[in-house]
Amino acid sequence: MKLYDSAMAPNPRRVRIFLAEKGITVPVEQVDIGKAVNRQPPFLAKNPLGGLPVLELDDGTFIAESVAICRYFEETQPKPPLMGTDAKDRALVEMWQRRMELELFRNVTGTFQNTHAFFKGRIPQVPEYGEVCRDAARKRLAWLDGELAGRAFVAGERYTIADITALCAIDFGRVSDIRIAPEQKNLQRWYDAVSSRPSAKA
Amino acid sequence: MKLYDSAMAPNPRRVRIFLAEKGITVPVEQVDIGKAVNRQPPFLAKNPLGGLPVLELDDGTFIAESVAICRYFEETQPKPPLMGTDAKDRALVEMWQRRMELELFRNVTGTFQNTHAFFKGRIPQVPEYGEVCRDAARKRLAWLDGELAGRAFVAGERYTIADITALCAIDFGRVSDIRIAPEQKNLQRWYDAVSSRPSAKA
Repeated sequence: MKLYDSAMAPNPRRVRIFLAEKGITVPVEQVDIGKAVNRQPPFLAKNPLGGLPVLELDDGTFIAESVAICRYFEETQPKPPLMGTDAKDRALVEMWQRRMELELFRNVTGTFQNTHAFFKGRIPQVPEYGEVCRDAARKRLAWLDGELAGRAFVAGERYTIADITALCAIDFGRVSDIRIAPEQKNLQRWYDAVSSRPSAKA
Repeated sequence: MKLYDSAMAPNPRRVRIFLAEKGITVPVEQVDIGKAVNRQPPFLAKNPLGGLPVLELDDGTFIAESVAICRYFEETQPKPPLMGTDAKDRALVEMWQRRMELELFRNVTGTFQNTHAFFKGRIPQVPEYGEVCRDAARKRLAWLDGELAGRAFVAGERYTIADITALCAIDFGRVSDIRIAPEQKNLQRWYDAVSSRPSAKA
C-alpha cells in the first residue's frame, strides 16, 4: 500500500489528518505538483484527472479522491468512527461533510484557483469568479459560527471527517485572506480545539 | 418520513432515481423553487442553505444533501447495493460518484447558474466562468466516453450512484447545450442503457 501525497495541497492533508486520527501509518510518496509531475503520463496512469491524493492498494488498485480514500480506511478500520455510527448518524455526517466541502472548501479553493499566481497559465482563471468565491466563503464562515453555538463539532458532539474538511478549508483560506473574523467566537473555539489535536500537524 | 422535492431541479432527481432503484416509496412534498419558497424561513428551518432535496425523518431530523439522503437509504435498505459492496468497492464507487459530481455535475450546474436567465438576480452570475464550466463539462464527457470503452457502468460492471449522478448531469446539461457528441459511442451506449431503466423516469 502507498499514498501519493503532496505536502503543499489541501486535499492530501484531509487524508493525512484522517489517518492520524485513526492511528494508521501508510508509506507515502511525495508528488511535486509545483513541477506538475501530477500532470505527466506516469501519474495520469494512476489518476487520469491528475488530482492528489491517490491510494495504491497491494493488488494494484488506485483509489483517487480524498473522501473515497477515507471511506476505504473507515471500512477497514472502523474505530474511532469518523464517518458516523449508524444509518442516521452516517447520513448526518455525510450531510455536514458535503456542506463543508461544497460550501466552504470549494469556495476557498475556487478563490485560490481563480486569483492566485500559482494557477496562472495552468487553468483558465476568472478573477471575477474568484471574488464571488471569496465572498461566499466568508459568508459560510459566518453561518458556521452560528451553527457551532450549540455544539462542540461540525456534525455534533463527536469529531468527524466534517471537521477535517472544515479545518483544511480554513487553513488553506489564509493565503486568500479568508479568515475567522474576531467576532466569530464559536468558530474560533472550535478551530482552537481541532487545531490542537495532534492530527492537525499531519 | 417525508421527502421535500423539486421536479425542476437536478439534485432531487438523483434521490428519486436512487429510491426507484431500491424500490422505496416515500411521501413527497413539492417545494416551488421558481417562487423561491426554498429561500423563505419555513424551509430554511429545515435546511439553512436552502437546497433541495431534504428528507424529514419521523423523529423530526432533517437530512439535506442528495448523497447524504441516499446514504441513509443505503444503510437502512442495503439491497440492491448502489454505493458498493465491500471496503474496496465502496471506496471505488465513492471515487466515481465524486468524479461524476465534482467534474461533471458541478460543471453542468456551474454553466447553468452562471449563464441562464433563471439565476439572473438570484446569484452573482459570472458568464465568463460559465463558459469555463461549459468547456470543462464537454471535456469530461469526452474523457468519460473513453472510460466507458472497457466497462458497462461508470464504476464497473454494476449500476451505482455514480451512474445516477452522471445521468442527471447529462440530462440537465441539455439546457446549457452540453450534450453527448456523435462520436462518443461508448457514452451513448451507456446513456441508452441507464435511460431505459424504469428509474430514469423518476
